[in-house]
Amino acid sequence: MNRNPAFSVTILGNSSAAPANNRHLSAQMILFENRRFLVDCGEGTQNRLVELHVRQANLDHILISHLHGDHFYGLFGLISTLHLYGREKPLALFAPAALKELLIEVLKVSETRLMFQVEFLALEDFVNTPLINDDRLLLECFPVNHRIATWGFKFSEQPKKRKIKLDFIEKFDPTIAQIKAIKSGEGFVSNDGQTFANDEITEAPRPSRSYAYCADTAYYEPIIEVVQNANLIYHEATFDSSMEQIAADKFHSTAKQAATIAQKARVERLLIGHFSARYKDLTPLLEEAREIFPETYLSEEGTSYPI
Amino acid sequence: MNRNPAFSVTILGNSSAAPANNRHLSAQMILFENRRFLVDCGEGTQNRLVELHVRQANLDHILISHLHGDHFYGLFGLISTLHLYGREKPLALFAPAALKELLIEVLKVSETRLMFQVEFLALEDFVNTPLINDDRLLLECFPVNHRIATWGFKFSEQPKKRKIKLDFIEKFDPTIAQIKAIKSGEGFVSNDGQTFANDEITEAPRPSRSYAYCADTAYYEPIIEVVQNANLIYHEATFDSSMEQIAADKFHSTAKQAATIAQKARVERLLIGHFSARYKDLTPLLEEAREIFPETYLSEEGTSYPI
Repeated sequence: MNRNPAFSVTILGNSSAAPANNRHLSAQMILFENRRFLVDCGEGTQNRLVELHVRQANLDHILISHLHGDHFYGLFGLISTLHLYGREKPLALFAPAALKELLIEVLKVSETRLMFQVEFLALEDFVNTPLINDDRLLLECFPVNHRIATWGFKFSEQPKKRKIKLDFIEKFDPTIAQIKAIKSGEGFVSNDGQTFANDEITEAPRPSRSYAYCADTAYYEPIIEVVQNANLIYHEATFDSSMEQIAADKFHSTAKQAATIAQKARVERLLIGHFSARYKDLTPLLEEAREIFPETYLSEEGTSYPI
Repeated sequence: MNRNPAFSVTILGNSSAAPANNRHLSAQMILFENRRFLVDCGEGTQNRLVELHVRQANLDHILISHLHGDHFYGLFGLISTLHLYGREKPLALFAPAALKELLIEVLKVSETRLMFQVEFLALEDFVNTPLINDDRLLLECFPVNHRIATWGFKFSEQPKKRKIKLDFIEKFDPTIAQIKAIKSGEGFVSNDGQTFANDEITEAPRPSRSYAYCADTAYYEPIIEVVQNANLIYHEATFDSSMEQIAADKFHSTAKQAATIAQKARVERLLIGHFSARYKDLTPLLEEAREIFPETYLSEEGTSYPI
């Protein structure tokens, strides 16, 4: 049994540009412990949440990577529905600055006065500042290379403290004060005068996990450093390699390029998505990616991937 | 076999406010001969067109009844998709005036320059003027009574000319010029000097058909005169009669009120729709409507109703 706190991503939509081949527009739900984050919100996202039985409890943050319609046209309807169903607690919306005026205008023409506060946070203001940095979660955005200003998002567990070894506790029965001291990095002196360095009586914590959503982007090497060693990344693979020039012209990536980023960043696993409507069968994209990076998987709508 | 020119309405969505109970947001496609008109465009309408295999050929007109989000949030995505798939011919958009600026703003933030022209026509400018008035179709809008400015739409075949009786043609073998004259209302003099009045040698045409979409509205008697004798009307029935006060407060109708409008207007058939999410089973709404107006039907998504 995996006893680590919940950390997963559920794919709601992985189609590029237009819904096609039974695939839907970009949206995914990240569950981090008991918090939920919606990342992008293509048209129909509110339907997807219902159809796929994705819980909306503790959905207090929505992140929009960029302002191409297929990534945010579902936001107005989702916000209206939250309002309709009586939401009262505030919602934090991280998005490119231009969305703010548009949202205000949309609510104005429909004469909607929301019952809850939408706290708008412009991604432009978070270049070197995390979006969230508390004792559990570090959430950062990073620029990618698309036709318009676009950001990816990286979710990281905060570094864990070293754990006190069980056999030490059984043998020396330390007090609460002593445990606190050891947890803060100190050593230990037993009643009979034995001294222990901190690393003798503690063990390394499990590694902190991380997930990165790389949004819509051309092949862009600066992403490599940002997502280094992540447990999972979602990288777009709109096209296969035979369309490399078209991908570049449209500031999108091929499956092979996505795999190259994953391989160079030494991530554990790669999910590819944002597939062009031209691909009914996605096997060729998977195959070309796996040649470069074997731990590649096709993102599947409705599936939750543990991180 | 029905040899009349095609005239039908296909229901794409009939849920009020939010998608629920497997019902989708307001949208319907009217087929008039070879022309298609999309009436309202709730979020997800582009998906509905694909899922329900509704043809989009000759979709050159979109009509938006009012600016509550559940009736137009699908418009931006649909327009983007038409653009993406290479549409070049213009699209006429009849909608409340405030939508124009909003559409411009949405296209601006996503840096989209459409490849086709959207001819924006403000419904406010068509109070006493038909939207379309050509030799086949009369399309008019009419105000209803909702929380914000809202219009219904009425599609009518133009009055038909009287038809020349078959047995007259067989007996007298008129020339093309004579047929033209009769069609324009003249009588006929045969070679042997017999004279016929026009109504002796012609018969009444089949009645012109009409369909009205009554949009979102409280019970509003001025609608009766507008939709008088229509073959089919779609009237909202958001609530059942036990919710009459709530319906009035929200400027919506009960099923009984929809039926009362249909009965007083002596229409042939009534389709009810725009159902509240509170009703999983719609039978009670149908039953209370049929007590007033037996020719009431629950609109069903994906079904095409001939007019």
